[in-house]
Amino acid sequence: MTENHLRSDGRTPDQLREVRITRGWSAHAEGSVLIEFGGTRVLCTASFEETVPRWLKGRGSGWVTAEYAMLPRATGSRSPRESVKGKIGGRTHEISRLVGRALRAAVDTQALGENMITLDCDVLQADGGTRTAAITGAYVALADAIEWARRQGHVARSAKVLTSSVAAISVGILPDGTPVLDLPYTEDSTAETDMNVVATGEGDFVEIQGTAEGAAFGRGELDRLLDLALQGTSELTEHQRRALAEELPTTSGRS
Amino acid sequence: MTENHLRSDGRTPDQLREVRITRGWSAHAEGSVLIEFGGTRVLCTASFEETVPRWLKGRGSGWVTAEYAMLPRATGSRSPRESVKGKIGGRTHEISRLVGRALRAAVDTQALGENMITLDCDVLQADGGTRTAAITGAYVALADAIEWARRQGHVARSAKVLTSSVAAISVGILPDGTPVLDLPYTEDSTAETDMNVVATGEGDFVEIQGTAEGAAFGRGELDRLLDLALQGTSELTEHQRRALAEELPTTSGRS
Amino acid sequence: MTENHLRSDGRTPDQLREVRITRGWSAHAEGSVLIEFGGTRVLCTASFEETVPRWLKGRGSGWVTAEYAMLPRATGSRSPRESVKGKIGGRTHEISRLVGRALRAAVDTQALGENMITLDCDVLQADGGTRTAAITGAYVALADAIEWARRQGHVARSAKVLTSSVAAISVGILPDGTPVLDLPYTEDSTAETDMNVVATGEGDFVEIQGTAEGAAFGRGELDRLLDLALQGTSELTEHQRRALAEELPTTSGRS
Amino acid sequence: MTENHLRSDGRTPDQLREVRITRGWSAHAEGSVLIEFGGTRVLCTASFEETVPRWLKGRGSGWVTAEYAMLPRATGSRSPRESVKGKIGGRTHEISRLVGRALRAAVDTQALGENMITLDCDVLQADGGTRTAAITGAYVALADAIEWARRQGHVARSAKVLTSSVAAISVGILPDGTPVLDLPYTEDSTAETDMNVVATGEGDFVEIQGTAEGAAFGRGELDRLLDLALQGTSELTEHQRRALAEELPTTSGRS
Amino acid sequence: MTENHLRSDGRTPDQLREVRITRGWSAHAEGSVLIEFGGTRVLCTASFEETVPRWLKGRGSGWVTAEYAMLPRATGSRSPRESVKGKIGGRTHEISRLVGRALRAAVDTQALGENMITLDCDVLQADGGTRTAAITGAYVALADAIEWARRQGHVARSAKVLTSSVAAISVGILPDGTPVLDLPYTEDSTAETDMNVVATGEGDFVEIQGTAEGAAFGRGELDRLLDLALQGTSELTEHQRRALAEELPTTSGRS
Amino acid sequence: MTENHLRSDGRTPDQLREVRITRGWSAHAEGSVLIEFGGTRVLCTASFEETVPRWLKGRGSGWVTAEYAMLPRATGSRSPRESVKGKIGGRTHEISRLVGRALRAAVDTQALGENMITLDCDVLQADGGTRTAAITGAYVALADAIEWARRQGHVARSAKVLTSSVAAISVGILPDGTPVLDLPYTEDSTAETDMNVVATGEGDFVEIQGTAEGAAFGRGELDRLLDLALQGTSELTEHQRRALAEELPTTSGRS
Repeated sequence: MTENHLRSDGRTPDQLREVRITRGWSAHAEGSVLIEFGGTRVLCTASFEETVPRWLKGRGSGWVTAEYAMLPRATGSRSPRESVKGKIGGRTHEISRLVGRALRAAVDTQALGENMITLDCDVLQADGGTRTAAITGAYVALADAIEWARRQGHVARSAKVLTSSVAAISVGILPDGTPVLDLPYTEDSTAETDMNVVATGEGDFVEIQGTAEGAAFGRGELDRLLDLALQGTSELTEHQRRALAEELPTTSGRS
Repeated sequence: MTENHLRSDGRTPDQLREVRITRGWSAHAEGSVLIEFGGTRVLCTASFEETVPRWLKGRGSGWVTAEYAMLPRATGSRSPRESVKGKIGGRTHEISRLVGRALRAAVDTQALGENMITLDCDVLQADGGTRTAAITGAYVALADAIEWARRQGHVARSAKVLTSSVAAISVGILPDGTPVLDLPYTEDSTAETDMNVVATGEGDFVEIQGTAEGAAFGRGELDRLLDLALQGTSELTEHQRRALAEELPTTSGRS
Repeated sequence: MTENHLRSDGRTPDQLREVRITRGWSAHAEGSVLIEFGGTRVLCTASFEETVPRWLKGRGSGWVTAEYAMLPRATGSRSPRESVKGKIGGRTHEISRLVGRALRAAVDTQALGENMITLDCDVLQADGGTRTAAITGAYVALADAIEWARRQGHVARSAKVLTSSVAAISVGILPDGTPVLDLPYTEDSTAETDMNVVATGEGDFVEIQGTAEGAAFGRGELDRLLDLALQGTSELTEHQRRALAEELPTTSGRS
Repeated sequence: MTENHLRSDGRTPDQLREVRITRGWSAHAEGSVLIEFGGTRVLCTASFEETVPRWLKGRGSGWVTAEYAMLPRATGSRSPRESVKGKIGGRTHEISRLVGRALRAAVDTQALGENMITLDCDVLQADGGTRTAAITGAYVALADAIEWARRQGHVARSAKVLTSSVAAISVGILPDGTPVLDLPYTEDSTAETDMNVVATGEGDFVEIQGTAEGAAFGRGELDRLLDLALQGTSELTEHQRRALAEELPTTSGRS
Repeated sequence: MTENHLRSDGRTPDQLREVRITRGWSAHAEGSVLIEFGGTRVLCTASFEETVPRWLKGRGSGWVTAEYAMLPRATGSRSPRESVKGKIGGRTHEISRLVGRALRAAVDTQALGENMITLDCDVLQADGGTRTAAITGAYVALADAIEWARRQGHVARSAKVLTSSVAAISVGILPDGTPVLDLPYTEDSTAETDMNVVATGEGDFVEIQGTAEGAAFGRGELDRLLDLALQGTSELTEHQRRALAEELPTTSGRS
Repeated sequence: MTENHLRSDGRTPDQLREVRITRGWSAHAEGSVLIEFGGTRVLCTASFEETVPRWLKGRGSGWVTAEYAMLPRATGSRSPRESVKGKIGGRTHEISRLVGRALRAAVDTQALGENMITLDCDVLQADGGTRTAAITGAYVALADAIEWARRQGHVARSAKVLTSSVAAISVGILPDGTPVLDLPYTEDSTAETDMNVVATGEGDFVEIQGTAEGAAFGRGELDRLLDLALQGTSELTEHQRRALAEELPTTSGRS
């Protein structure tokens, strides 16, 4: 890996794709974000409900959960709808669970009270890294929904519901051995190793999922990937911070 | 119904909401359109495949089909995902079939050859009239997919695949007896009568679905609703024509 | 269309098939009717329950719903059972919803009190027009179930639960351009346009569903079809009236 | 058990309910029978197809299978549809398999050639003994379908496809210890022991299914039940023989 | 059948395979048994819960139910998992119901109180007779779970919950006409007649299920099969008695 | 973490539970292993089939896949069967995919030829670490199945199908901050961080899945967990090596 190694899209190995975060994209949801990592485009909505799942009732604690899905033609060739097939595939199940765990790591469910927030992450267009974009965008939608609940009086003004921010990014090792950050589909489909890292705004790990797609990887490669990933989540944290600092458009969201 | 009757959103009874048609919204599909009827926003993609359903194989004829769905938080309160419930609801089934029938009415399946086009209409945001927006937008995506197939040589340059255009609109009778065009959710949920009309660019009927939600309606009321609907589809036809006359953005769509 | 145009089964264009309505066909249901439109034979049962769906509880209002289905060999070739396939098809879903809506148009659900009536329409033999026979027969079964509930004291003697009668018929345009009433399977499968009309006993429309199977149809054709349909529902209303005027066989139904 | 013991419906312990077998009840099926055992009413259709299940292809042998189901309001209170629930219940599964095994015992599948006959037994009205009525009626429908296939040339004129007849009946022990034949619902729901027996026209056993609902039963009781059952199937065999000896109505069935 | 007739595995016609009953096989369940009939190996666990199904609530009575299943590679070739297929097959349904009925015949559900015991019978290795091994083993697991409940005070010390023991065995007629006891897979797959008998420790019948796989069978054959079966269940009762007489290993089961 | 820190079961932080690997546990499968990590007991069978999934046909390459499941009473309280619920849960889906990926990392699918091996990992008793026991045991069953295929001539004698061994272990951080190896259920349910590591016999990583259940974890904690994990997989590799060095019992497995 050298400074002058360039990728097919012209980025350096440690460079993120262009990140765009559009808050208030949807008129109905308590929080909604269209997040783009280059050609990957995910609509994240946060739905606030004054209820909790049955197994949590009466405990004074809330819940955060997530569902991830792809539109059938988000990808290069059309996939059958899971609703039509009548069941959810393993990949969908796995990513939904990952997104939910990641976001719960940012929340003090006691401070949330007996309320539930559901994060729907629908991939409108896919070009690699959809789960990491989903987590990064869902955090912003979550923050907006919590702020909405505060304004509505569903959550105490003083309650510190968000305990940290979370962001996620993919890293991988290209066939030529170069470790790279934020893989688009063409890189992802040929990478030797593929890793998704969720980290807090403080740079601690929430989740690490690394898989050797080709050859197994050694401790040194792992260390370089983790360095790249933490650099990436740090930049994404800054994107989230800036997005949340802006005023939410008054015509968008439930205000 | 008088000229000076105004609706809650300030429109006259015979006025469409603002219509926006954005072609090439999606990078992967052979045709893709984001269509907006006011606050209703539907992503329509057309997927072209060089195959046909099994029951059509070897007959030299193609097929056009459609699937309609709503994102869980497209509406004011969140609906459970049909993929998670493991089955498609009656309303989804019904609208998917309607969209497919409507689009097939525009196509000469012999001229299409043994190819199949699937129209996915996903409601990103709902404010009444989602099925009519879906049909109107899907027609434009279909036209782009057929043009793509022609450029790729999958369909003969001379083949007249599209035999007409189709567009659709809702009409209804408000509780005060006023017949109105293009109902948003607030009007739709209280209307006495609700009708969806699909018509060709020449003003002939492809489909009429009228339902008395409250009192049954007489022949005179029906006639006034049909007048309004044909005026609406005529305007939508013009919107479609203008959208298709523009150059497709070169960075969008499979080119 | 001329007076002397005859159809394959010898009827004139505006002639219904033989209609037979057998009340009290089933020993258990609160209302039950075997209705026949020529070779189409539908068993309609009305089940009265002193309950309402959860979303209606405590509102003092009742509910009427319907389920339509076909026996696997009701048709010329055997269809797989939907119970074995594990899901209901789009057509079944669509017709069940249509029958339910049509019957609810005849009922004052407030007058019904917190009670629920389920109309099961099972096609024992199909020869076109099964959904219209289902609606027409279900109305009679519904009337019997309401009368049963009145006798049992579940519904007040003075309550006017039925606000009108409903009947339904199909109309269509044959390939030679002739508009015809009450199409059997052979006509239905080749008709250019196919329309189902539900109307009250007073001749107002409850539902209109018209589809161009071949060429789109103009306003003039539509008008002729509506004329035919209203003539047909008017005759069916008379059949219903006569059937309900007879004494219910004492050995049938829950008495 | 004494000669003068009478049951609630006035029958002697060894007396069948009135048996009615109506052939050609359905216009489309290759064989169709409405069979009635008192208030139990089952429509049995036999569908002949020139195909076999995949696992039998190319072996020169045919297949006979069955599906049993109940209409939702065949019983005293309405049961949810299995198609709507999205799965078949254990009881339905079990009886479908029983009917299929029983009918296959009557058939030489080699003589049938590579053809398949599906027996659909739909209970239109239930009053106990629905599975035994289904088997007894399905045999007659099967015989008609095989005769139809012979006339059409799908099966060789000389082929002896039916090797015997089969009929079925229920027997049981009432709470007072009386063994009885052909139990209606009221007896069936309180019987100590419940047994269904399928036998050939020659009086040999095809299937015996006996269950102690209350106390376990001894060898002596078993013997008395088997005596009663064989007397019952012998009478049913005679009913089948007489029904098949009549001319099939020319307007019914596929002729 | 003669004394010197030997079967492929060297047994005489009236000889059981080696029976092994290992109590306390599982650490968590209130009762658990690994039962082996030769190469057939079934893990039976009894789960005690202080609840009853909804339809039994408030009646002071308990419930016993069972679920039977096979591991995918319990058999010679792998079968698809029913959980992956998304539905339970007819055979599984049927056997689960049989096991439940058989065990309920051993229990006084009033004496059990408002408690529920679920018997899970999972076939780890199959070589014929899996349902009879399941019933025979489940009885022992049930007895241990009831004893556990007694020690815990969930069931009164004086309550006579078990009213008898139950055991089950298969019998059949080989192609050469020999009636045999306890058929392994190779015999079972070629037998002319196949019968499963469930009997109490006193030798009364709880369930008889006999099927003619080939030719129908006469009364004499039936009698010889019943003789063999009762001899077999009598020996199994003795195996159960001996197993339950031993001390339960203290490290196993919930103690 | 100090040498003298002991866990509730008396182990040191870096100590595995007792590992037992029983080869040839099942009579039918081409490879079968009962693996135990303390109280966790998983039956792993490898089924060899001379076929490949449809999407691989004709490419000269094989496939390895896995399915993981738990018996309903493998755990402290009974879980409903996924086959009865009609769908597989997210956790099952996720682990099945993990096991499949892990084992494929050990195989050269080209050398396997157009053959498929399915690894079924059924948890008979659960006490934490079921997925890691499944992977470790499945590797041994896989090796036996490949050896079987070699003896049968389905795979070339010279083909190097296994390119390395794989083993897996869990590590975690206890609430007091101690990093520990191989967590039983009681530790797993309270751990702050939970990580599963799959590694090759050479000590390279195949998969890392780490989740912060409580507080996020830093780079230093991650490093200590990875050290522990690699020590654990190294010991498991030795267990696998020793197990495979023994002679397979001749009465077990398909030989």
